[in-house]
Amino acid sequence: MEMKRPARVLVLNVSPSVDCGRFPIKRIVHDTVTVSADLVADGHDVVRGRLAYRVRPDGLWQFVPLAHQGNDRYQGTFKTTTVGVYEYRVEGYIDAYATWRERFEKKRAINQDLPRELAQLAQIIAQHLAMASSLPEDVRIQLAQVQQQLESLDVEAAADLATSKVLQDLMLKAQDDQDVGRSEIFLVRVDRPRALFGAWYEFFPRSCAREGSRHGTFAESEPFLEYVAGLGFDVVYLPPIHPIGTIHRKGVNNHTTAKASDPGSPWAIGSAQGGHLAIEPSLGTLADFDHFHQSVQQLGMELAMDITFQCAPDHPWVQEHPEWFSHFPDGSIQYAENPPKKYEDVYPLNFDTPAWQALWEALKDVVKFWADRGVRIFRVDNPHTKPLAFWEWLIGQIQAQYPDAIFLSEAFTRPKLMYALSKAGFSQSYTYFAWRNTPADLRQYLMELTRTEVKEFFRPNFWPNTPDILPEFLQTPNVTAFAIRLILAATLAASYGIYGPAYELLESRPVRPGSEEYDHSEKYEIRHWDLSQTPNLQHLIRQVNAIRHQEAALHNNHSLEFHGCDNPMLLVYSKQSQVDGRVLLMVVNTDPVYTQSGWTALNMQILGMADDAVYIVHDLLTDARYEWRGPYNYVELRPDSYNAHIFRIEAKEGI
Amino acid sequence: MEMKRPARVLVLNVSPSVDCGRFPIKRIVHDTVTVSADLVADGHDVVRGRLAYRVRPDGLWQFVPLAHQGNDRYQGTFKTTTVGVYEYRVEGYIDAYATWRERFEKKRAINQDLPRELAQLAQIIAQHLAMASSLPEDVRIQLAQVQQQLESLDVEAAADLATSKVLQDLMLKAQDDQDVGRSEIFLVRVDRPRALFGAWYEFFPRSCAREGSRHGTFAESEPFLEYVAGLGFDVVYLPPIHPIGTIHRKGVNNHTTAKASDPGSPWAIGSAQGGHLAIEPSLGTLADFDHFHQSVQQLGMELAMDITFQCAPDHPWVQEHPEWFSHFPDGSIQYAENPPKKYEDVYPLNFDTPAWQALWEALKDVVKFWADRGVRIFRVDNPHTKPLAFWEWLIGQIQAQYPDAIFLSEAFTRPKLMYALSKAGFSQSYTYFAWRNTPADLRQYLMELTRTEVKEFFRPNFWPNTPDILPEFLQTPNVTAFAIRLILAATLAASYGIYGPAYELLESRPVRPGSEEYDHSEKYEIRHWDLSQTPNLQHLIRQVNAIRHQEAALHNNHSLEFHGCDNPMLLVYSKQSQVDGRVLLMVVNTDPVYTQSGWTALNMQILGMADDAVYIVHDLLTDARYEWRGPYNYVELRPDSYNAHIFRIEAKEGI
Repeated sequence: MEMKRPARVLVLNVSPSVDCGRFPIKRIVHDTVTVSADLVADGHDVVRGRLAYRVRPDGLWQFVPLAHQGNDRYQGTFKTTTVGVYEYRVEGYIDAYATWRERFEKKRAINQDLPRELAQLAQIIAQHLAMASSLPEDVRIQLAQVQQQLESLDVEAAADLATSKVLQDLMLKAQDDQDVGRSEIFLVRVDRPRALFGAWYEFFPRSCAREGSRHGTFAESEPFLEYVAGLGFDVVYLPPIHPIGTIHRKGVNNHTTAKASDPGSPWAIGSAQGGHLAIEPSLGTLADFDHFHQSVQQLGMELAMDITFQCAPDHPWVQEHPEWFSHFPDGSIQYAENPPKKYEDVYPLNFDTPAWQALWEALKDVVKFWADRGVRIFRVDNPHTKPLAFWEWLIGQIQAQYPDAIFLSEAFTRPKLMYALSKAGFSQSYTYFAWRNTPADLRQYLMELTRTEVKEFFRPNFWPNTPDILPEFLQTPNVTAFAIRLILAATLAASYGIYGPAYELLESRPVRPGSEEYDHSEKYEIRHWDLSQTPNLQHLIRQVNAIRHQEAALHNNHSLEFHGCDNPMLLVYSKQSQVDGRVLLMVVNTDPVYTQSGWTALNMQILGMADDAVYIVHDLLTDARYEWRGPYNYVELRPDSYNAHIFRIEAKEGI
Repeated sequence: MEMKRPARVLVLNVSPSVDCGRFPIKRIVHDTVTVSADLVADGHDVVRGRLAYRVRPDGLWQFVPLAHQGNDRYQGTFKTTTVGVYEYRVEGYIDAYATWRERFEKKRAINQDLPRELAQLAQIIAQHLAMASSLPEDVRIQLAQVQQQLESLDVEAAADLATSKVLQDLMLKAQDDQDVGRSEIFLVRVDRPRALFGAWYEFFPRSCAREGSRHGTFAESEPFLEYVAGLGFDVVYLPPIHPIGTIHRKGVNNHTTAKASDPGSPWAIGSAQGGHLAIEPSLGTLADFDHFHQSVQQLGMELAMDITFQCAPDHPWVQEHPEWFSHFPDGSIQYAENPPKKYEDVYPLNFDTPAWQALWEALKDVVKFWADRGVRIFRVDNPHTKPLAFWEWLIGQIQAQYPDAIFLSEAFTRPKLMYALSKAGFSQSYTYFAWRNTPADLRQYLMELTRTEVKEFFRPNFWPNTPDILPEFLQTPNVTAFAIRLILAATLAASYGIYGPAYELLESRPVRPGSEEYDHSEKYEIRHWDLSQTPNLQHLIRQVNAIRHQEAALHNNHSLEFHGCDNPMLLVYSKQSQVDGRVLLMVVNTDPVYTQSGWTALNMQILGMADDAVYIVHDLLTDARYEWRGPYNYVELRPDSYNAHIFRIEAKEGI
């Protein structure tokens, strides 16, 4: 038999946890972690629970008492104050003093056995003094004093002292570690706020040349950064900036043959000019990149770098490390294919190669190289075609050195694989948002993201478009369609992004009917955008991003609540800030063509108001104010005006 | 970095599992274990899953292929053939050959790259031959033959062979263990069928004297066993048979003072005559017990022994091992109390004593002593007042030596504690059934027991009464009330029991109004029962137990399904046997006073019939047969006759 007596309290069913603790939950700094668990012990003694937590690897354990929620379920909360990894576990123990006190109070009421019970308390205190190994000196002294007093006082006075708040507090501090039941240890990955909240803007620097169809440079792109900052974006994301392969380079509209002047796809990485650590010479030098990066930061934004782990046929690694690739039986290196299609411009890396350790280290060194230059946000291309274990390792390694590093997963694949990537470490993820258009679909998807265990590890980043995705909804130059999708993305998810200027300039033509590829996609050619073109979405984007900055309610996903409406084309939802308590209420007409009206059915309890409350809804887009009463209020939204309300709920003056 | 490349397939969310695998699931022999898991891998390669299982500790691992259920979820089933503990885990791997084959079939359709693809297959086969460490010799030889044939055949014939069923089967057998993702190991406790199914009868042998108020003996109880066997019971459970304490012995109706002639409560164990290893002399000797035990077995029944781990003040352990008890400050041994009540006839054992190891071993030796004498069923009194870790250890120790040992938990306490006892190892448990009377309450409770994760570890044993519990519903001599509760218990749960002859003789008077204690409880005095007294329930019990033996549908809990009825006083439910496929349909009038009638709304799909099926319901109580059609059929049940139907569903002759 083992030498240590097993603890009396069994700790079970700890929540939150992801896959029984196999993966961390995610939080940002200055966030809360509310933990629940079943504490089950035999008999009727008083059970106490505490939540233990610390910063990894060697922070001091801190303790939070748990409150009993009923049915042997306990709960407590701690706050995250540091970026990094926290550990937490739930502990439960029998509180001998509280058990004694419960019995004593009953006996005192009937004046039964009081001297004997007080003598027993003296024993309990003596045991605590003797056993509590980590007893603080002041607690020890005070407890010894109480012990002496109990002996000298008469029964009535001793009974008062024995049940006093003073002794209760002392005994709580004197709890010994000896007989504590413990759960497994669970992890929290704590990120900086940008991992949760941010507006992203993707653009191609090569399209920023001052004139004609010339290839733009980093230097020429710097004025464009002011435009992006002026629209209110937080993160600038650039497609790959590395030398683009020349062998089997793709031409305009993804043609398999390229003209000499075609710039190629930035995702076909590597040429004689270098690979993942080099800069495409047409964009400039590493120094130009650093200067560009500094300008991004000076404008109050952050740079997100693309990580695409694949190689063009002329990537230096193909010659230097043929063992990092798969090979055809004739010894040639295997390109990607999906019969009948062949992607001869791209060689996938073979993550299963016998030389996997060297390959994985080299890929880590790529990320580290850019992190060492100050990049802290990485948008990872197609992570779902590389092993989950690789990402878990790589992100762990990078965040160990750079705890503020953020990774966005660009995966559009099977739901469980997308979620597994987030579990493995991605800070946030692209989503199916681009294909969720109706209020019913949006509601269902958002419920999955914010109401199931998914919310513990998956942070959505909503993109209405990307260079790869021009959804059918946007295949019309109707400015209202673009406005609807922007407002939905920016108010449903704490993180959202657009690929511009295609988005704000209403670029809407697919390469062919039924395709989601842009015609004359910027992936394969240089585009020149006329930012003064009208109609455009610039004013609305500025407004929406300003509202996002001003209203903390939009900085989280968890507070999202849907409300009822008798018109199924209208989506009604609210968000609330735990910081300032403010509530925003959004009403969006998802019909880009027709005016829609209806009556809301608001959940007043969620809005924090009485069912008959009179209140002001203040439209932050138009600055209009309406007096509303209770849950049922008339709304009408017209595609030829703002097709949405972003209301701030305000008290009616004078109430 | 670790030396072994992590597996490509992540195995998550394995079901069934209890508390992330902390506790075993439960099955009986010749039962099935159906396991599901998410298998998540990057990319689009073909993922295969298998369920690995073996008998602990050193059985050979066996493998069952998993079927893909959609959405990356996989499922497989194995059968339990041995009493003991099984291990299982889910494994997933990339099937290189199947991945190749998928691509090849597409290419073959467009006649693209076929020679190259066949060369690649040759490489895959070569790798399997080289790496599959545990490749059976015949598989190796056949695979090598295919390899040679592929070289010599023309492309068309090679393509046929490459995609043939022969090669598919060979490659399945040749899967290597190198790159397999594995879940944790989960456990199954496999019991013999009696752990799940059985009708129990509890009685006091001391009430079986041939004449007067004399104390009955084991020898005198043997004829009574024939009566119990005649009623069709499977298990005979005796209250404790050990010497009863004399100090503070309880008198009639639990009075704190006993007359010299009062026999005392059997649960106050131990006197100068001995403790937990001794027999109360008034009952006879150890040899008498053994003879009685043999008679139980000869009648086709099994004996359940009581395990009550507490001591009367004159139990030998009190003198021999005062360190196994708690002490008052004056050094005297602490009795149980619940202010203002004091239970001075019972000393609880102190499981937390510094001498806990010796105490726990001694308690294990008690169980082992009776197990060594052939007892295999133990009904444990108040296990919820002893540490969960103690039971987990004790039951594990006993079942390691006696895998067929069965433990019934007599806990009526908080739900999570009752469930935790089952998780810790109890084979079955008393329940809240005694206090669930209405169809709505019964339905809700049974759904919890049979539809939630509870079903994986908790086996209910339904008792309408016990010596401690005379529920309000039975505090009337109305034979129908007793009949209703018996039929519910015997058909809702695979295990049920009654405390007799109090039950079948309709003993219904509480010690005082509002109490659930029997008046003149047999716990404190010798009773003499007139088995010929009428009315009684003997005929119904014989019928019900006979039906239980005949109908395998009643041998499980998992198949329970509730059906609709427009009269809320009628409870309609079915059970089905996986063995013979038969379906029983019960209709119970829960009103013991008034006739109730109504229309059923049967779930025909669950009954395995078309919505417009015409079928016979054959009442096994009355032998009446009715022709029913579809879901809606009229039922009327009268308290002055059978107040329930136990229908067997039969095909209409001639269809």
